[in-house]
Amino acid sequence: MVTLELTDITAATCSAPLLREPLSADEAETLAKTMKALADPARLRLLSIVAASKDAEACVCDLIEPLGLSQPTVSHHLKILTTAGFLTRSKRGTWAYFALVPGAIDRVAHVLSTPA
Amino acid sequence: MVTLELTDITAATCSAPLLREPLSADEAETLAKTMKALADPARLRLLSIVAASKDAEACVCDLIEPLGLSQPTVSHHLKILTTAGFLTRSKRGTWAYFALVPGAIDRVAHVLSTPA
Repeated sequence: MVTLELTDITAATCSAPLLREPLSADEAETLAKTMKALADPARLRLLSIVAASKDAEACVCDLIEPLGLSQPTVSHHLKILTTAGFLTRSKRGTWAYFALVPGAIDRVAHVLSTPA
Repeated sequence: MVTLELTDITAATCSAPLLREPLSADEAETLAKTMKALADPARLRLLSIVAASKDAEACVCDLIEPLGLSQPTVSHHLKILTTAGFLTRSKRGTWAYFALVPGAIDRVAHVLSTPA
């Protein structure tokens, strides 16, 4: 269930944006888990490269060279981003393709925004 | 210089929001550092409690009990949030007071938002 954590986050978002009222321990745990998935330079670069690709989708074969990391390391970071619900993974032929989940990062941005 | 990292983030924000174009290695490092300051349940709860306090300011003496952590641990987390530019610290009498830096978390939210 790759979107489970993000689903939790979305629920937390609706009930308690960060700056509106004190977060419960559970809400804080869920949000911190999602933030940790983003809090890494390689993962932030992967997201930005996928987002800037045609149809917001990229082959893992095109993600290795720009990062200058090994394929296993890149795959490890992509798995964290997929588990956290920011990317989806599909296999076509030899290669895996990763696509941005529409609105997923925006939901995190919404939690961090000052409530109107 | 407590706001140094946040100043960097703001600069990165203006030039390259996450989902607009591939982040450079330097931009990704800076953004990841800021995200790491947020990616902890205790620190997220501290921010939300300070934000919900009168004038978005709270005495450290009022932050210990809600978190159920020791004073040194709470002070450690507050220091990380202050260094990252999310809080300012002022001493009045025996106690330190922490205030939310207006717009600081919104700037992170802006980086994560899909560009219009």
